[in-house]
Amino acid sequence: MNEREVLILLVEDNPDDVELTLKAFEKHNLVNEIIVTRDGEEALNLLFPEDEKTSEPCTPDLVLLDLKLPKVDGLEVLRRIKSDPLAKIIPVVILTSSKEEKDLTESYRLGVNSFIQKPVDFEKFTEAIIQLGMYWLLLNESPVR
Amino acid sequence: MNEREVLILLVEDNPDDVELTLKAFEKHNLVNEIIVTRDGEEALNLLFPEDEKTSEPCTPDLVLLDLKLPKVDGLEVLRRIKSDPLAKIIPVVILTSSKEEKDLTESYRLGVNSFIQKPVDFEKFTEAIIQLGMYWLLLNESPVR
Repeated sequence: MNEREVLILLVEDNPDDVELTLKAFEKHNLVNEIIVTRDGEEALNLLFPEDEKTSEPCTPDLVLLDLKLPKVDGLEVLRRIKSDPLAKIIPVVILTSSKEEKDLTESYRLGVNSFIQKPVDFEKFTEAIIQLGMYWLLLNESPVR
Repeated sequence: MNEREVLILLVEDNPDDVELTLKAFEKHNLVNEIIVTRDGEEALNLLFPEDEKTSEPCTPDLVLLDLKLPKVDGLEVLRRIKSDPLAKIIPVVILTSSKEEKDLTESYRLGVNSFIQKPVDFEKFTEAIIQLGMYWLLLNESPVR
């Protein structure tokens, strides 16, 4: 993993959560580049550009995806990724404050790789991000090369 | 997670790997029950019993799945789980010594949740199991209740 650039796509509209996530990854040198999009539509435009001749699809090593997002919600972004024959191999982790059972079950039905409830306490949030980053970027083998 | 029984299904034919995995989970009190099956056919019989009237399907919180298995291989077990409308929500982690690119890509295509290459060194193997257990049993939200 360390031989090449590691890219994360973070889809999150809460500026505090974005800042905490970026800081945690930076502090632990887990990643070379993080692209942040603040709504689901922007994320889909990056992953599935309308004109592939002019812009190449973004193929991150990992997508961190909030559920409640402006324009297009997280479940729809997940559905698009996991129903696309090429993009479906990208690991997607839902990172949400939702405690609703139906969000959890529907995410797994749609093929999410992992589902994490954001800890409310900001130190615990940072710890969760670090644990998540170490698992997905160091221990797990990514299919994206 | 701690309020209920946590069940893992370990599908592994190598006795050394089974022993190391059981010890690692036991030492860290990560799990209440681990069912071990030594081949893919036995795993499928547990997950999809032929006669559901007499035996209930096993619904583990996590399946740890080797690839090279007697009778039915790991990719086929994965394919069966992830193409079943009910069982597909069960998190499946491939744990393999295979370094073949096609195993990695095919696993993600079939919908694996995570793919881990077994470290050869036994201490590193144990560390990987502990990290994996802490991620999937403490941080990740399981859809299996």
